[in-house]
Amino acid sequence: MTPKEQRLRYRMNLDATTTSGLCDDYLQVNLITLPREYAFEFLLFCRRNPKACPLVDILEGGSTQPLVADADIRTDLPKYRIYKNGIFENEVLDVTREWKEEFVTFLIGCSFTFEKALNQAGIRLLHQEQTKVVPMFKTNIPCEKSGRFEGNMVVSMRALKEDEIEKAVEITSKFETSHGGPVHVGNPGDIGVQDIYKPDYGECVKFDENDRIPVFWACGVTPQNVCIHAKPEIMITHAPGHMLITDRVES
Amino acid sequence: MTPKEQRLRYRMNLDATTTSGLCDDYLQVNLITLPREYAFEFLLFCRRNPKACPLVDILEGGSTQPLVADADIRTDLPKYRIYKNGIFENEVLDVTREWKEEFVTFLIGCSFTFEKALNQAGIRLLHQEQTKVVPMFKTNIPCEKSGRFEGNMVVSMRALKEDEIEKAVEITSKFETSHGGPVHVGNPGDIGVQDIYKPDYGECVKFDENDRIPVFWACGVTPQNVCIHAKPEIMITHAPGHMLITDRVES
Repeated sequence: MTPKEQRLRYRMNLDATTTSGLCDDYLQVNLITLPREYAFEFLLFCRRNPKACPLVDILEGGSTQPLVADADIRTDLPKYRIYKNGIFENEVLDVTREWKEEFVTFLIGCSFTFEKALNQAGIRLLHQEQTKVVPMFKTNIPCEKSGRFEGNMVVSMRALKEDEIEKAVEITSKFETSHGGPVHVGNPGDIGVQDIYKPDYGECVKFDENDRIPVFWACGVTPQNVCIHAKPEIMITHAPGHMLITDRVES
Repeated sequence: MTPKEQRLRYRMNLDATTTSGLCDDYLQVNLITLPREYAFEFLLFCRRNPKACPLVDILEGGSTQPLVADADIRTDLPKYRIYKNGIFENEVLDVTREWKEEFVTFLIGCSFTFEKALNQAGIRLLHQEQTKVVPMFKTNIPCEKSGRFEGNMVVSMRALKEDEIEKAVEITSKFETSHGGPVHVGNPGDIGVQDIYKPDYGECVKFDENDRIPVFWACGVTPQNVCIHAKPEIMITHAPGHMLITDRVES
């Protein structure tokens, strides 16, 4: 299916599953919608933390049509989450009823996008082989603050063989809108990760520590966490793993 | 004099002349201060128009200490302009009395910075030889709009010999925070410039049109014009040619 066909299935509520592995030639993005009152501080936060928050598109004035996809962002994602005052309220299949003119929407790159390039370079990804959601961890790496938006970086982890790491750094560094190169290689303790088998998000992935080294990339959960912490009256996001599939081919 | 020494002279109001040619190893920047209410739209405007508005630093919440200079931006520029509701009010030597906590300040790169690199590559600049302010022109090149911020690009012009152009493109393209490479080479009429000897800003620079070709770079007057057009209650800028000299070495 093309991205457009896939999005139309979401629009008609025929499908509400994860977008992981779907239309894998195309950029997928995180969605964060905030009231305009928060827009400057959050845009500045993204600018100050480009690895965790690689901005792909910004839709102001309640606009629902991104540049990167022939889509309506209120209906064309499989599933959304609504937060009020920083508290999760519910998960819904579209957000047309909640939509307001004062909303500003930020579309932020996602590391789903570079996994295909790693695979093509012959790098096996264990979470794919074990059919798990990639493990994600809270770290002690502080983001640069902007107004009410602050917090530590969340990272995703992929355990690689030593001789794959240089190649993986080279490949992912090119994906600037998908978090770019790793933020840490090697010792989880150095970035405040206590137990590599107890992720804060996603699922545990087993690996032989004599054979593989954990590699950490900045993760789109970072801006979500930071936004929840800022407690806006309302905030809309994609449901985890249920991204907007864009029309932009990623290579 | 070092940038710090030069800025202290401005702070003590011992000097209020143009910064052109001063501390020429260091980045100089345009200053635009706006009420917070305009900050999101203007930050988005800069993001959408990076050639005309290469952001170097953003100071929110009335902050007066930039990252790029050990300076107080209320006093350490030689001269400021104050606009109210889009109308020029007056020129002053410091803006301490006008300062408010709700101000957000944008520091934007300036093409003064790349002229030294052009000189070092053996490229003669006629406005320097004729001791004129570089000529600047309004064009028909539209900027990408953001809310109340819209308008056409303003460009600076340097007439170069044909065999210098490739080199000049290569050199200036590296100066991303100083407008980067040219936006047009060749025919002024193509970008809406009717008379190359009647600049809208700066001064007329004479050249032999059989010998030299006009080359146009995006110019920091663009964001100033666009801001005036948006008619904020108050806006503070550097006076033309009286920039903030930063501590950042440019190479």
